[in-house]
Amino acid sequence: MNSPIKVGVLGARGRMGSEAVRAVGEAPDTELVAAINREDGLTGLLDGGAQVAVDLTHPDAVLDNIRFCVEHGIHVVVGTSGLGTPELATVRSWLADRPEVGVLVAPNFAIGAVLSMRFAELAAKFFESVEIVELHHPKKADAPSGTAARTAQVIAQARAEAGLGEVPDATTKELDGARGADVDGVRVHSVRMTGLVAHQEVLFGTEGETLTIRHDSYDRRSFMPGVLLSIREVGSRPGLTVGLDALLGI
Amino acid sequence: MNSPIKVGVLGARGRMGSEAVRAVGEAPDTELVAAINREDGLTGLLDGGAQVAVDLTHPDAVLDNIRFCVEHGIHVVVGTSGLGTPELATVRSWLADRPEVGVLVAPNFAIGAVLSMRFAELAAKFFESVEIVELHHPKKADAPSGTAARTAQVIAQARAEAGLGEVPDATTKELDGARGADVDGVRVHSVRMTGLVAHQEVLFGTEGETLTIRHDSYDRRSFMPGVLLSIREVGSRPGLTVGLDALLGI
Amino acid sequence: MNSPIKVGVLGARGRMGSEAVRAVGEAPDTELVAAINREDGLTGLLDGGAQVAVDLTHPDAVLDNIRFCVEHGIHVVVGTSGLGTPELATVRSWLADRPEVGVLVAPNFAIGAVLSMRFAELAAKFFESVEIVELHHPKKADAPSGTAARTAQVIAQARAEAGLGEVPDATTKELDGARGADVDGVRVHSVRMTGLVAHQEVLFGTEGETLTIRHDSYDRRSFMPGVLLSIREVGSRPGLTVGLDALLGI
Amino acid sequence: MNSPIKVGVLGARGRMGSEAVRAVGEAPDTELVAAINREDGLTGLLDGGAQVAVDLTHPDAVLDNIRFCVEHGIHVVVGTSGLGTPELATVRSWLADRPEVGVLVAPNFAIGAVLSMRFAELAAKFFESVEIVELHHPKKADAPSGTAARTAQVIAQARAEAGLGEVPDATTKELDGARGADVDGVRVHSVRMTGLVAHQEVLFGTEGETLTIRHDSYDRRSFMPGVLLSIREVGSRPGLTVGLDALLGI
Repeated sequence: MNSPIKVGVLGARGRMGSEAVRAVGEAPDTELVAAINREDGLTGLLDGGAQVAVDLTHPDAVLDNIRFCVEHGIHVVVGTSGLGTPELATVRSWLADRPEVGVLVAPNFAIGAVLSMRFAELAAKFFESVEIVELHHPKKADAPSGTAARTAQVIAQARAEAGLGEVPDATTKELDGARGADVDGVRVHSVRMTGLVAHQEVLFGTEGETLTIRHDSYDRRSFMPGVLLSIREVGSRPGLTVGLDALLGI
Repeated sequence: MNSPIKVGVLGARGRMGSEAVRAVGEAPDTELVAAINREDGLTGLLDGGAQVAVDLTHPDAVLDNIRFCVEHGIHVVVGTSGLGTPELATVRSWLADRPEVGVLVAPNFAIGAVLSMRFAELAAKFFESVEIVELHHPKKADAPSGTAARTAQVIAQARAEAGLGEVPDATTKELDGARGADVDGVRVHSVRMTGLVAHQEVLFGTEGETLTIRHDSYDRRSFMPGVLLSIREVGSRPGLTVGLDALLGI
Repeated sequence: MNSPIKVGVLGARGRMGSEAVRAVGEAPDTELVAAINREDGLTGLLDGGAQVAVDLTHPDAVLDNIRFCVEHGIHVVVGTSGLGTPELATVRSWLADRPEVGVLVAPNFAIGAVLSMRFAELAAKFFESVEIVELHHPKKADAPSGTAARTAQVIAQARAEAGLGEVPDATTKELDGARGADVDGVRVHSVRMTGLVAHQEVLFGTEGETLTIRHDSYDRRSFMPGVLLSIREVGSRPGLTVGLDALLGI
Repeated sequence: MNSPIKVGVLGARGRMGSEAVRAVGEAPDTELVAAINREDGLTGLLDGGAQVAVDLTHPDAVLDNIRFCVEHGIHVVVGTSGLGTPELATVRSWLADRPEVGVLVAPNFAIGAVLSMRFAELAAKFFESVEIVELHHPKKADAPSGTAARTAQVIAQARAEAGLGEVPDATTKELDGARGADVDGVRVHSVRMTGLVAHQEVLFGTEGETLTIRHDSYDRRSFMPGVLLSIREVGSRPGLTVGLDALLGI
């Protein structure tokens, strides 16, 4: 067996960071060499000899963290949000000087969520009908969820490329809102309910059959298998990679 | 074993009627003595010695049919829609003269649907959150379905009687329609999809747990167990009974 | 508003007990007056003026705890397992001397689970087919779960009382175990899966339709609404009550 | 628009064949030129100028039908079962002489079922846990279904290739059959229930999340979109193709 990958976690005391600290410590092929918080500074990564840094900090801090790592030849797995198109271009420019370094930016580390979206994209062209039902705890502020909206967009694009027309719908008498939100022609329904965590169902229908792809996330630990997969893979993927999809090979 | 109940079916050639003809013919404790269509007249009920008539005809015809049956001492099971409060009052007035006759009017014979609604009513007061998702074929004109709207009303009333307040919902940023239709404070979502028939899910949530009551109707034959139950019971329930609930004993 | 009910929690540091301490502290109509652990002794209940004690301790300790409470006129809600028929008889004998005291023993405080079982019992006689699928985390030692086995027994009894025969099943070629375990004629299937917590589906089928009652428990906090309901009700139910059902009024 | 594909249906009066006659007649890009039954002989295919034949006959007849079509340069879509490895080798030998002809043999034309199996194969390596629940009408003789057994085998192979070990399962006390059938290490549960048609759920689990792929087949018409897709594609795929997967491009 190879020696474990040396990992530093940035944002180690946060909700996600503390889970990452645990997961990296428990996995047999990774070793935690630095657990760094906002007040610590980043030199701990160098002291520990980190090969990979996992950034689970804050939109304000993430870009500086990435810069430091790239300059010091440390691969980075980024779970912090806030990297838009201009920020990603900046990261690419840093990487131009250090072509051996890998940076992986993933908006969602839950492998099940990423697979759901990809399967939905692959299935889309074979079904006349499609709708999405997403279900979350009642403290969520936005409806639909970002994941549901992106899934609808991906499906809509696949339908358009396959030349599919509108989803059939004979509704003539609707109580306002019953048929859900329209995201690029795909209906999305948002359920908010005490007891639930984060769940999504994509339903496809054609003559005589339906296909349902359902993802249930019960716990923020659901991100950890994706974080570990990213840690294992980022070193062999120099340059910038956006999205976990690339690592899943489908 | 008792001798079979002699049954006449009105509207025998219709979609529901032809299924009823089959079901009455196949059940061991019922006997089909008359299969009557619009052009036939009702005397076939008398010729066959029908004890129970099943009306699956048309809103235009149903009242005259009931009158004939009541006057001739034949119990009636009515699956035809179109009987509002004034029509039911008329039926009651006829029954006043024939107190031994039973008339059972059921808007829905699917036992699973009737149980779903009753269970939803019973569960309502124990859960902070509740929503309904109903799913139908895409040729349906109204959204939400009548059954879903009634279920929501029944739940809302049970919540009100138990002193429950509003369902928790922190949504501040909603794409129009995402949170569904509001029926008396209960959110209802309508999915329309090729391949589906008629389905409904009532979801209840409280701290750490959810309860889901789902009804799937695959086929109009789903009405037949309820029709047969009604045929067996109507003779021992003189007067007017509305809804299958009374027969289910819960 | 009435003054809050004064509550003592026994086993306050345990997994369930610590949740109960939190729940009693947060609810507007209950007040935590004692949080007692094994080493503390029970006089803290008297010092705090507890009206209701919640026992979430250990099978070794529970009977002594109940005795103490009954003798001191404190109502008891018991979530600890280990009270069989002889122990319940003993509790009844103590209560004979203190007829004003209420003791409520509940094997399961999750209201959704209790409702599921009751609805399954009520539905059983209307459906030709019934099966149970229960799904749990993979660390569970027994299959099927105790709840699933009890649900199957309750259904089997309701079927027998209604004169229903065997569930139809034409299987002639079975790979060993495919059709599940046979509990009094009801098939029960046990899924064990990382990521899951505790879930159960009771499926009923008749011609053309199915009814599914599903309970999902995501968290041990799911017991707390049932614990609070019990605290509120036990004072008005003198004597021994077994099972949350009695409180649900269905 | 191109002129429609001229199609002959073999076994035109059978359950599947009569649906194919209907579907070919209704689709805008296919034209029914021959509806042939056992007693008719195959020359009707030539008389009608069929470009594609759809064989939905009987294991006894299918090989002769394929031979006739290949010899006459007619592409064939085969839905009849009974073609094992030796029969497929025979078909290949015939095709060696007519390399421009396409023969597509599909054990299952339901696109949703084929996608389900493929998605299950793709997802398998990312999840520690996996189980299958398949649900069918109670007249089915075998348990588990052939589709479920094949799905389990495909998953088991993908797990083996990824180096995954056994699915975690701490069951020590099992009522016989509760944990389902063991197909190459994947547990499969078979539900049999009046009202159901043909349904399958593949459940995957990892830390904190589950992914479920569910296929519901309500009606044998569910095969028709796959049959039409095959008719459209077989002409551009000379030689022997086994399985609809190849056409789905995933």
